[in-house]
Amino acid sequence: MNVVLIAIACGLLAVVYGFVTSAQVLKQSAGNERMQEIAGAIQEGAQAYLGRQYTTIAIVGVVVAVLVAVFLGLTSAIGFVVGSLLSGAAGYIGMNISVRANVRTAEAARGSLQGGLTVAFRSGAITGMLVAGLGLLAISAFFYVLTNLRGYAPDDRTVINALVALSFGASLISIFARLGGGIFTKAADVGADLVGKVEAGIPEDDPRNPAVIADNVGDNVGDCAGMAADLFETYVVTLGVTMVSIALLIQASSAELMQLMSLPLVIGGVCIIASIIGTYMVRLGAKQSIMGALYKGFWTTAILSVPLLYFATKYTLGGDMNAPIGAAGQFTEGPDPFATTAAVKSFNGMDLFWCMMIGLVVTAAIVWITEYYTGTNYRPVKSIAKASETGHGTNVIQGLAVSLEATALPTLVIVVGIILAYQLTGNVIGIAFAATSMLALAGMVVALDAYGPVTDNAGGIAEMAGLEGDVRNRTDALDAVGNTTKAVTKGYAIGSAGLAALVLFGAYTTDLKEFFPDLTVDFSLSNPYVIVGLLLGALLPYLFGAMGMTAVGRAAGAVVEEVRGQFRDNKGIMEGTSRPNYARTVDLVTKAAIKEMIIPSLLPVLAPLVVFFFITGVAGREQGFAALGALLLGVIVSGLFVAISMTSGGGAWDNAKKYIEDGNYGGKGSEAHKAAVTGDTVGDPYKDTAGPAVNPMIKITNIVALLLLAALASHAAG
Amino acid sequence: MNVVLIAIACGLLAVVYGFVTSAQVLKQSAGNERMQEIAGAIQEGAQAYLGRQYTTIAIVGVVVAVLVAVFLGLTSAIGFVVGSLLSGAAGYIGMNISVRANVRTAEAARGSLQGGLTVAFRSGAITGMLVAGLGLLAISAFFYVLTNLRGYAPDDRTVINALVALSFGASLISIFARLGGGIFTKAADVGADLVGKVEAGIPEDDPRNPAVIADNVGDNVGDCAGMAADLFETYVVTLGVTMVSIALLIQASSAELMQLMSLPLVIGGVCIIASIIGTYMVRLGAKQSIMGALYKGFWTTAILSVPLLYFATKYTLGGDMNAPIGAAGQFTEGPDPFATTAAVKSFNGMDLFWCMMIGLVVTAAIVWITEYYTGTNYRPVKSIAKASETGHGTNVIQGLAVSLEATALPTLVIVVGIILAYQLTGNVIGIAFAATSMLALAGMVVALDAYGPVTDNAGGIAEMAGLEGDVRNRTDALDAVGNTTKAVTKGYAIGSAGLAALVLFGAYTTDLKEFFPDLTVDFSLSNPYVIVGLLLGALLPYLFGAMGMTAVGRAAGAVVEEVRGQFRDNKGIMEGTSRPNYARTVDLVTKAAIKEMIIPSLLPVLAPLVVFFFITGVAGREQGFAALGALLLGVIVSGLFVAISMTSGGGAWDNAKKYIEDGNYGGKGSEAHKAAVTGDTVGDPYKDTAGPAVNPMIKITNIVALLLLAALASHAAG
Repeated sequence: MNVVLIAIACGLLAVVYGFVTSAQVLKQSAGNERMQEIAGAIQEGAQAYLGRQYTTIAIVGVVVAVLVAVFLGLTSAIGFVVGSLLSGAAGYIGMNISVRANVRTAEAARGSLQGGLTVAFRSGAITGMLVAGLGLLAISAFFYVLTNLRGYAPDDRTVINALVALSFGASLISIFARLGGGIFTKAADVGADLVGKVEAGIPEDDPRNPAVIADNVGDNVGDCAGMAADLFETYVVTLGVTMVSIALLIQASSAELMQLMSLPLVIGGVCIIASIIGTYMVRLGAKQSIMGALYKGFWTTAILSVPLLYFATKYTLGGDMNAPIGAAGQFTEGPDPFATTAAVKSFNGMDLFWCMMIGLVVTAAIVWITEYYTGTNYRPVKSIAKASETGHGTNVIQGLAVSLEATALPTLVIVVGIILAYQLTGNVIGIAFAATSMLALAGMVVALDAYGPVTDNAGGIAEMAGLEGDVRNRTDALDAVGNTTKAVTKGYAIGSAGLAALVLFGAYTTDLKEFFPDLTVDFSLSNPYVIVGLLLGALLPYLFGAMGMTAVGRAAGAVVEEVRGQFRDNKGIMEGTSRPNYARTVDLVTKAAIKEMIIPSLLPVLAPLVVFFFITGVAGREQGFAALGALLLGVIVSGLFVAISMTSGGGAWDNAKKYIEDGNYGGKGSEAHKAAVTGDTVGDPYKDTAGPAVNPMIKITNIVALLLLAALASHAAG
Repeated sequence: MNVVLIAIACGLLAVVYGFVTSAQVLKQSAGNERMQEIAGAIQEGAQAYLGRQYTTIAIVGVVVAVLVAVFLGLTSAIGFVVGSLLSGAAGYIGMNISVRANVRTAEAARGSLQGGLTVAFRSGAITGMLVAGLGLLAISAFFYVLTNLRGYAPDDRTVINALVALSFGASLISIFARLGGGIFTKAADVGADLVGKVEAGIPEDDPRNPAVIADNVGDNVGDCAGMAADLFETYVVTLGVTMVSIALLIQASSAELMQLMSLPLVIGGVCIIASIIGTYMVRLGAKQSIMGALYKGFWTTAILSVPLLYFATKYTLGGDMNAPIGAAGQFTEGPDPFATTAAVKSFNGMDLFWCMMIGLVVTAAIVWITEYYTGTNYRPVKSIAKASETGHGTNVIQGLAVSLEATALPTLVIVVGIILAYQLTGNVIGIAFAATSMLALAGMVVALDAYGPVTDNAGGIAEMAGLEGDVRNRTDALDAVGNTTKAVTKGYAIGSAGLAALVLFGAYTTDLKEFFPDLTVDFSLSNPYVIVGLLLGALLPYLFGAMGMTAVGRAAGAVVEEVRGQFRDNKGIMEGTSRPNYARTVDLVTKAAIKEMIIPSLLPVLAPLVVFFFITGVAGREQGFAALGALLLGVIVSGLFVAISMTSGGGAWDNAKKYIEDGNYGGKGSEAHKAAVTGDTVGDPYKDTAGPAVNPMIKITNIVALLLLAALASHAAG
């Protein structure tokens, strides 16, 4: 049997899980009329926003699809379209279930904490499984059609280009979705807080605040739809680039290549099974620890994955884990860009299995480190809370210190992962498989994340509908853990990007050798154009972050003006006698977010092209390629730190506020609390707009470089 | 005549200028008794702190000197000691004149703005000329003794090692001074503001605040002594590494090498002359623009430098600017690490002159860009001020956005500088000369910077002594410009580090080839250990920044506790009937700063050693050297952005506060002003502790790597 069919079957299983669980969630009571009315408004706003966002992206998408078709042919263009559409679908479906689960979570939390957790987590699990399932389906079905039905060899240039184009589609949509959603959610959140909590002195989620629905819409379009698109991208790119690097680096018969290229797909498949089983283990224990309940699910998945990965590898590679891969070790004779000084080393199935274990350990380590830096039980968050006692300034100083420090351990983990995986196989393939097994857990990780915005919304609905205090306390407890799991996903995505970027760079250098065998490109650090590329690459996340932060500030300012206007023109709002115009605020944020997302999203698409053509003009094509390659690594070297510091720092600020609200350092309303609110506001665009969008940004830069190479080559050939 | 004597003469001229101008400044009236009393307390505190700081550093210094003597011989150890002592002296003397000029500036400002500006700027100019003069004297006299009196060939290993060791001495002292002084000044500043302005509701510099003297001491030990040590280090390292790279890269007769290696010294010499002339041009025009007055001095120096550099180059190289350097172009036959792919290119004196012009243009561009990002007349500062209207959170968000954005233009300028200088000479020597001409202006740049803390202190003394309102307005106006000039110096130092790091890396690779000719070290980006080194190097500025920020937070917290205690135990303080115990606060901050500076300062010393030995253990010595080399570039690639964003962002926050205090967005006491004070507090450790210390940190990492190579080689040989 063709093993790709196993992957396709697992992908379909995830989709079935999504449908079945959706039905379970929708069966729950949607609460009283007022709750349904509020939820309806949120739903309407979210759908309206996503509709407009995807329309805008579609325009860019069509232009790019035509360019891909012209430069790389129809098959690649189809790959691009498939990647784009499914990325959009993952976000759209995730948002759709989340806007229905929010009100049901609020209703269930009236009964018990477990009830709320179950509904919220299930809805998160639907998004998680659809992200992994649709990602796996897209790539495995497309690969199956090309190699089995259309009969291309697995390392045929058409297949490789199509896989890269598929990844490009996923990435391009996801950067728009991540950034647009991120700007929407944080502009609404910050704007609502400023004008509501600070100016008008009304609590969060007070129904008199005209921005309150926009704030809740933001949770769905940013933290849910944007995140889902981002992780879909990470999943597809990681699996895709692993397959592409096998095709490029290893010279073997088509049958042998098929085996090895199918392995990432089968890994993804079996881990979906482990993830589905894990979701059923999420249950509160005697201690009522929410994080503990989520950990049960995560650990079940991780531990189950170990034997599943072993047997999947064994089966896919034909049964012998110790045989050198390919007949007589020929897999290691390819043009390995990493073999310049290290002795060429033969590797086998067991080595690959150990690389996958490294991926699992890296994932677990990042989960633990992120919990340490963003959880309310540990030094970093407590230190920010304590610093709030002496004011706004010291809160922010300590938060920034934590955000800088939070980069250290993840970097060390990634570095050790790279070294070990490389040592095991002697080339980049080991690193690729470590990244693949990391991403194989995406279903579970996304499930842990996507439950957060649902509980956040549930809390908002409880507040607006005037439900009893207990409900809000329960949803708040769920939400605090959500801050940590949200930070985990981002650390995980960017950590996997650290590994994937190496693989992408390997693909770039190999492509370069294959397309332009007569060029000698010097990637040595002693080539000044390499330094130039590194510096320009390192600049991109900074510039991108600046644009994202400014966009949120500007859009939040517009929200403040709008709400002030409503308060001024309609005195009844504050008296509670007349309804604010929620829809107008939603509409305003929608327009602002869509306008603001475009230029920063195009930065990583255009920067590689500009740098390549500029340096080529100045110093010739060899140096152009050298600078472009260095740019790809500069983006990751700098982006890793920018992204981790922003996402962990932001999570820590948010939870420091929650820690104070739990009654520490004076509790709600104290001066320390005001300072902590400031920190939280600062952390908002850090963790939900600029930081997470760095992950797709890194990938796009790399993929555009690969496509540029292919286009230049086909231009030179044609 | 030996041209090194010209450099020595110019160095002595700078010292004479220092003495003469000191006498002029000291001749000014020191004001009334109360003013003298306050100034006396500041002076006492600053001397006590520096005394203790240097005692602590001396312990580290003696240990390191012994290690250098053991591993590299006595001459190197002497070089280390000379570098250390003069670095300490530059800081000490700068502080000494600054604590005497502050009260005289306050007194002179009672007369007129021009009067205050003259005294303050002259005292800054003394520090500036001593930094450049002592730096030039140290390196040129030491070089003269070794080559002329002791008779070593200029490229003898003893000379090279001694120059590197001299740089190491300067760097090691300066990181302690920059960081210790930075922690002192910001802990006192933040602590005084928190407990004074925020808690007790008394104005800045109110004599009832027990931390007010410590705050003023901080300006002298941090912004003056720490900055002077930092720039001394930058000066010595840049000139030193230019000479070392000439010795390593160019194979020629000793006489020819002597010529070329003396050129950086002569450049430094003639630019001192240009700087001294420039200082006399600092005068207010009809518009009373302070920045305009300072610009007159800067532009005079820059423009005068053009012909001076031309004739100095022509004279030093023997008269013909168009002859290939060295007989029959043999200077270009050396083991150029940059010649792997680029064709080996011959260069001449004219090429070097153009490289120097690039250095001048880069300096001017960085000055202009920094003024744009931190001056009150432009969009960035105004945008932060505007964002303050909506609260603390939006102020900080906009400030962070500006700080991220502020990295873009300097990076592009540095990149263009690298490309052009490299194109001119075809190797790293061109980049080295661009960096040297940048640093040759250090006398003037430091003069512009060092005048800032003097005016800041003058304002404090005016406030405490109860001088008339006009005086404070005048010193405030001088101080606002000081924020920009302080940011300029830091941007300039880190920008030059961007160029110098490339040269240092060139020295590292060349040394490696010379010491270990049988090793093949692969610096290609496709070597995973290179990526590992880049990531670990990029981590260092983040970790270092986190430590610096945390240290300030912790020490400021201790100040708050101390001051609260004094208020509690002595009710007379707030009533104005009894004096606070200023000395106890100074003592407390002194101890805290010295304790907190040690571990972060050792980070860049130990990190290269740990990484090298760890990677060597895991993957062998080739990969250890590859990872270490990549670490050196990782530090600069990441440090450049961390440092520029922190220093420019901090300056912008500070001036946004000043812009509001000038009456915009509600002026002093408004809600916007409170938010701006928060931003200023956040910016304080950013711009004065963590950010600027990144510059010596980068150098130390590089120099330690060079010394490690030399030590390993002598160990292998012995």
